Amino acid sequence: MRATVMHGAHDVRIEDVPDATLHASTDALVRITQSCICGSDLWPYGSMPESVEGRRMGHEFIGIVEDIGSDVSGLTKGDLVVAPFLWADNTCDFCAEGLQSSCRHGGGWGSPNVDGGQGEAVRVPQAMGTLVKLPVAPDSALMPSLLTLSDVFCTGHHCAVTVRVGPRSTVTVIGDGAVGLSAVLAAKRPGAERILLMGRHENRTDLGREFGATDVVAERGEEGINRVRELTGGDGTHAVLECVGTTASLEMAFGVARDGGFVSRVGVPQDDEVPFSWKYFMRNITLTGGVAPARAYIEELMPDVLEGVVEPGKVFDRTINIEDIPDGYRAMADREALKVLIRT
Amino acid sequence: MRATVMHGAHDVRIEDVPDATLHASTDALVRITQSCICGSDLWPYGSMPESVEGRRMGHEFIGIVEDIGSDVSGLTKGDLVVAPFLWADNTCDFCAEGLQSSCRHGGGWGSPNVDGGQGEAVRVPQAMGTLVKLPVAPDSALMPSLLTLSDVFCTGHHCAVTVRVGPRSTVTVIGDGAVGLSAVLAAKRPGAERILLMGRHENRTDLGREFGATDVVAERGEEGINRVRELTGGDGTHAVLECVGTTASLEMAFGVARDGGFVSRVGVPQDDEVPFSWKYFMRNITLTGGVAPARAYIEELMPDVLEGVVEPGKVFDRTINIEDIPDGYRAMADREALKVLIRT
Repeated sequence: MRATVMHGAHDVRIEDVPDATLHASTDALVRITQSCICGSDLWPYGSMPESVEGRRMGHEFIGIVEDIGSDVSGLTKGDLVVAPFLWADNTCDFCAEGLQSSCRHGGGWGSPNVDGGQGEAVRVPQAMGTLVKLPVAPDSALMPSLLTLSDVFCTGHHCAVTVRVGPRSTVTVIGDGAVGLSAVLAAKRPGAERILLMGRHENRTDLGREFGATDVVAERGEEGINRVRELTGGDGTHAVLECVGTTASLEMAFGVARDGGFVSRVGVPQDDEVPFSWKYFMRNITLTGGVAPARAYIEELMPDVLEGVVEPGKVFDRTINIEDIPDGYRAMADREALKVLIRT
Repeated sequence: MRATVMHGAHDVRIEDVPDATLHASTDALVRITQSCICGSDLWPYGSMPESVEGRRMGHEFIGIVEDIGSDVSGLTKGDLVVAPFLWADNTCDFCAEGLQSSCRHGGGWGSPNVDGGQGEAVRVPQAMGTLVKLPVAPDSALMPSLLTLSDVFCTGHHCAVTVRVGPRSTVTVIGDGAVGLSAVLAAKRPGAERILLMGRHENRTDLGREFGATDVVAERGEEGINRVRELTGGDGTHAVLECVGTTASLEMAFGVARDGGFVSRVGVPQDDEVPFSWKYFMRNITLTGGVAPARAYIEELMPDVLEGVVEPGKVFDRTINIEDIPDGYRAMADREALKVLIRT
């Protein structure tokens, strides 16, 4: 079958790989219909050391169940399903707490012996726990929005949940990438009163406004911090959703947080140290967030997607075929595309 | 009057300073009866650059109201009062949220024009908001425990509150200083089921056991992390109370945190960077805490002190007079004394 393999920085290839097959009685085999490229894929795209063997890519997909192992119940061949970006049994103690990202029997797509999502098919470990059935036809217009349940919308939601966004919250979202825009939508959903979006790409911040941002702050660094403080009576906001992952963006996040506030980060951290100085300690700032347990949120968010209350799929601004994936990476890295959907 | 002035590392002097007097109509003048030396005083004691003018010391005290400004009501000359380690109006929006440490009209003892607590008397700004009356006689045996409401017990409590310790919690407390031991007591108070105390000074960890620690871990670093994990089925604890303030202790704190867990720190941070690597992000660890809004907790904690349900004053293991304060600093720095009470 055809699948995406990254061999190094800026070296993404579509290759013939062994067909996905069942290995364990708890597996399912899923023929992929839609997948996409993630902002987090761009980090290795920018920096991965050369590798002959390469790394299978892709962790967001929708597909049709083609086969199931003998211990899988509740799924039938032909079911249309979405998978979260980490697979999980959904029954262990961590999963029971809603922390499927730490599942005792879980793991990531594209890890050894597990297929990546940017390909024709995937072996799904822990299929009963991982896959969620979609009550629509494969040609539904809702597919892009449903696909965001695999990662980006759930990740934005995790960011909003961990800083406890609620009605009347005042929120700053840092980053106008697909995660940042999803975080805007996720903050608007429970009724945040004011959402300040920090970003400087107008086509993206325009979508941010559509998703619920009330203010856009194009300035960065100290200037950006000052602007947010100006807009909030000098105090900053109680909730800060940091959706970039760099030290510079974290510094902005702490800088715009109101005393006693919460900063959540969901962008994969690019540094091992957090610039959390004495002054933020004196202001009782909390740093929360982490990798999103997407599986915990799919059923909760799906009704709003099905009813059209939210349209997170608007983050996709380009659709390509599998053979064009290398150019899709390039387009996202060059900021030509916000988020690329792959139709398989 | 006599008061404590620090002129540099290991240079604490008792000097004649101008008598404390009322400056503003919202002030009170308090004649100090008890005060103490704080673990946080030891940081400048170890490193303060030489200063001719020096710095007034002390931020924990009980005393008797000797005079009040014209705008002060609810306090009368002769009242016995305790002060939190930061003064606050207790009416602004931050105070209303329980964040008196960020009071819009608050500040710290020993700042310019404000007396320190290690002296004979103090001008108390924002007296109505700051001072809390004590319903006991000045010679009550409860005085040491009531004095801990000014800082150390409230700080331990803040640590426990911010990581949401409750009944059945499993907790790690890092540090067997007075704050760490107070954190043990604060974690036991709402019913934590298991409290692992990381410390290596047996006389202190013995008091920790008396306060509620179920296990003592003397190992440090990787060894300490491994020991806590062994004791908790490999997982670590959901709540981690970091009561030291160094990078090494924070590394231990993250290391013993269970996935999805909360680390709270209340020890004044000694570094501007937090070693919060990618792996803790993947495990959804939250870093919370900060300087304790002691004022927010005094009324809540006082009944348990008055009824003898808790005896936080047991952290005091030495009582001295004001002229002996320099030796009190030395004794605490040399770990000869856990916490020194000053009888004025």
